[in-house]
Amino acid sequence: MSDMTAQFAEIVGADHLLSGDAVPEDYSHDEELTQSPVQPAYVAKPATAEEVAQLLKAASEHQVPVTARGSGSGLSGAARPQPGGLLISFERMNKVLEVDTTNQVAVVQPGITLNELDAATDAYGLRYMVYPGELSASVGGNVGTNAGGMRAVKYGVSRHNVLGLQAVLPTGQIIRTGGKIAKVSTGYDLTQLIVGSEGTLALATEVIVKLYPRLDHSATVVAPFADFDQVMTAVPAVLAAGLAPYILEYIDNLTMAAIIHTQNLELGIPDRIRDSCAAYLVVGLENRTSDRLDEDVERTGELLAELGAVDAYVLEGGSARRLIEAREKAFWTAKAIGADDIIDTVVPRSAMPKFLSTVRGLASAAGGGVAGCGHAGDGNVHLAILLKDPVARKQLMTDIFALAMELGGAISGEHGLGRAKTPYYLKLEDPAKVALMRRIKESFDPAGILNPGVVFGE
Amino acid sequence: MSDMTAQFAEIVGADHLLSGDAVPEDYSHDEELTQSPVQPAYVAKPATAEEVAQLLKAASEHQVPVTARGSGSGLSGAARPQPGGLLISFERMNKVLEVDTTNQVAVVQPGITLNELDAATDAYGLRYMVYPGELSASVGGNVGTNAGGMRAVKYGVSRHNVLGLQAVLPTGQIIRTGGKIAKVSTGYDLTQLIVGSEGTLALATEVIVKLYPRLDHSATVVAPFADFDQVMTAVPAVLAAGLAPYILEYIDNLTMAAIIHTQNLELGIPDRIRDSCAAYLVVGLENRTSDRLDEDVERTGELLAELGAVDAYVLEGGSARRLIEAREKAFWTAKAIGADDIIDTVVPRSAMPKFLSTVRGLASAAGGGVAGCGHAGDGNVHLAILLKDPVARKQLMTDIFALAMELGGAISGEHGLGRAKTPYYLKLEDPAKVALMRRIKESFDPAGILNPGVVFGE
Ligand SMILES: Cc1cc2nc3c(=O)[nH]c(=O)nc-3n(C[C@H](O)[C@H](O)[C@H](O)COP(=O)(O)OP(=O)(O)OC[C@H]3O[C@@H](n4cnc5c(N)ncnc54)[C@H](O)[C@@H]3O)c2cc1C
Ligand SMILES: Cc1cc2nc3c(=O)[nH]c(=O)nc-3n(C[C@H](O)[C@H](O)[C@H](O)COP(=O)(O)OP(=O)(O)OC[C@H]3O[C@@H](n4cnc5c(N)ncnc54)[C@H](O)[C@@H]3O)c2cc1C
Repeated sequence: MSDMTAQFAEIVGADHLLSGDAVPEDYSHDEELTQSPVQPAYVAKPATAEEVAQLLKAASEHQVPVTARGSGSGLSGAARPQPGGLLISFERMNKVLEVDTTNQVAVVQPGITLNELDAATDAYGLRYMVYPGELSASVGGNVGTNAGGMRAVKYGVSRHNVLGLQAVLPTGQIIRTGGKIAKVSTGYDLTQLIVGSEGTLALATEVIVKLYPRLDHSATVVAPFADFDQVMTAVPAVLAAGLAPYILEYIDNLTMAAIIHTQNLELGIPDRIRDSCAAYLVVGLENRTSDRLDEDVERTGELLAELGAVDAYVLEGGSARRLIEAREKAFWTAKAIGADDIIDTVVPRSAMPKFLSTVRGLASAAGGGVAGCGHAGDGNVHLAILLKDPVARKQLMTDIFALAMELGGAISGEHGLGRAKTPYYLKLEDPAKVALMRRIKESFDPAGILNPGVVFGE
Repeated sequence: MSDMTAQFAEIVGADHLLSGDAVPEDYSHDEELTQSPVQPAYVAKPATAEEVAQLLKAASEHQVPVTARGSGSGLSGAARPQPGGLLISFERMNKVLEVDTTNQVAVVQPGITLNELDAATDAYGLRYMVYPGELSASVGGNVGTNAGGMRAVKYGVSRHNVLGLQAVLPTGQIIRTGGKIAKVSTGYDLTQLIVGSEGTLALATEVIVKLYPRLDHSATVVAPFADFDQVMTAVPAVLAAGLAPYILEYIDNLTMAAIIHTQNLELGIPDRIRDSCAAYLVVGLENRTSDRLDEDVERTGELLAELGAVDAYVLEGGSARRLIEAREKAFWTAKAIGADDIIDTVVPRSAMPKFLSTVRGLASAAGGGVAGCGHAGDGNVHLAILLKDPVARKQLMTDIFALAMELGGAISGEHGLGRAKTPYYLKLEDPAKVALMRRIKESFDPAGILNPGVVFGE
């Protein structure tokens, strides 16, 4: 047993420290498609913030790279460990510490999954609204990636739903940021700096999340459009109408066909229409009363017709749920149809038509293709990249990201840079900004142990 | 003419550089009550980001302290210049660069006032929802303080409404952060780090702000309560009911009496009730349709009665507007009645009853008094402190802030620390956090020129 193994085992208890061949394969990767798995030298499963602090302190002293892991459902490779490194898995820190109905917040440990948190808040009629497609994801992972998901168009992303943290600095200090409060102007906002930092600045050991009332009445409207640009121009119009949809997704024809096929969906849309349409808009509506919901559904149908939809289908309970679940699983569908990579670029909503048509042109010029869907209300375009040749693909993706940035967008809207997208980022981002972020990184992590490679490259 | 005067004049043009006795008194303070004014050595009025960059570069080189100023309406002393320092006034950078209706954002220069921006967006049926009581405040000042205001309960504070910046680093580098996008997971969130940093990290030279549709129908309900705690417990109940008020304020009896008196208000509330009640809840409602508004008003009235309100008065257009305006001017009322200091502490909503009753006890034990109102929906309590003796007052305020922090809150919910509250902050905050913030500060501002004294003390 090496010195470090003994030291880490001493901290978390021998039962909660794995090393060498005892480390299961699952810890060597997340769900990102292109990175090769890397076995960590150690996997520690701490139970308390104090244990995390001691682990980080020891790792800092001995220059052991540390990667935090929630559920490993990330799509950027950010939870892939470093060779010779320590993986801190938060699976044992998975408790709801408090559901506070007066302040409408929950205080949770980072390893709790979204499914578990949803079950724990249900009895109170409340809900944590961050809703990435993968409900086995953890709240700590949401903090790491600033996860979004379908409901972000109404409720915001993780950033807007995380009010405070207990966090451990790489030096082993434990701090608290924010609180059960909606706003604060007292020093720098460390909560928001840590959210989205992909485990490179500090590790969250407690998270205060916002809860919202569960509204009793909801409906889903699906509208096929013959023309791609019309879908895109419909998006801001639906938002401007003040209908406050809680879901506003587009799904292109190819992706919808694959979803219908792989998930065995029956939407009641005639084949004739499905064959002739270019893309679909999915609008989720919710309200406190069924009367208001009915009115909103009707108004949405009229509006979509005005905006050029071929038709609008109101899905009933079961089929609505199945469509949303199928949409959540679009990543698995993309993987199944052989996607070579995926992206989740964000652009201003107004730039979506231009972005998508240019990208399709770039892809076919490179001899490949793209298909996808996206959180249209957020300008967040998810595309499967179909292009086998790695060199050509790298060039295509560079061109796509450069285009997104030129249009005022960014490489990732919600998945993060991780290990997979960092090289593009370093190539395309303003060096003054990268240098500033590197100085910020050093102000948290002077020894450089937290997730080296992510955001700043090797 | 000194060397520095010549150098700064060269950058902005001699017409836009004031120095020595030519500096008007107004530049020597903001609206904070306790700080002595300080004349800056220079006032520069740049017209472009490039000019700001050159000013900061020159100031960094020559170790001249720099304070940014919007409209000087701040309540923390953060815009009070340093002796021998340079004040950069953004008054000439006050243009709307773009109102983008598709993305529902405006791109503005920082010196624009909220009144001016409101006028510019009105024609589009859109609105910037940050609404501190003082509409002569600038958007750049909002960025500096992370300003809140009455509408924050529904629309969030500046942090939630600023999507991107062009900002100048103290080294003279110009960067762009965020964009016309609702979300982004691409590197650290520099926008959110700069928002609320009170001019200590970087200066904003362009701001992308979120706009929302102006809803056509609104109403204001005022409910007197005989018991203080009842008002406080009503707050979370109103929010939990899903009525989504855009204003949710409490006003204590003394403050309401002063407001009614100084602003000559007529609310139609009988004297008998006014005399017997402890505080008022003010609920602003708005909707897309008048039917829905009427329903919500009725439901609110019923709910307030259930929660123990003595009565509920629906104010018509003119008197509603006058009450809201009077509430906005509560600071001037506090000043007029001789407040010795003011605070804008934030606590979890559930802690408001305990906080307020304890504070009243502390104040009277110290031989003084407190009166106030607040953004109750945010747990943001504004109090005028009435206690002449400076030593006793300092102790009282330390006790109040310590109590707020113990209850899970913070010193300031929206005004910032500035020069006035920084000493309390340094006394009460976890030193590990202050040290981390200081390192972050150094990563932006190695020469330490930006607003020295603010956040970190002299
Ligand atoms: C089918 C599918 C659909 C998806 N749909 C969406 C979607 O719609 N929107 C979306 O945003 N994402 C989506 N994702 C991606 C993923 O679910 C999210 O990124 C999620 O936030 C990851 O959570 P996790 O617990 O699996 O994190 P992990 O993958 O384990 O880690 C993610 C990052 O967080 C860091 N981290 C983990 N725990 C902590 C901690 N305690 N403190 C600090 N950092 C920590 C890690 O180091 C890593 O950088 C999807 C994934 C799949 C497989
Ligand atoms: C009657 C009254 C009522 C008020 N009500 C509220 C309220 O309800 N809610 C609330 O939040 N505030 C309120 N305030 C306080 C004030 O209006 C806000 O703090 C506002 O944001 C200040 O804007 P300003 O332009 O006057 O900023 P200033 O006072 O000029 O500056 C404030 C801070 O911002 C910095 N700053 C200015 N411009 C820039 C820039 N371009 N880049 C970076 N930093 C910059 C300054 O250095 C300083 O630190 C009120 C004030 C008054 C007088």
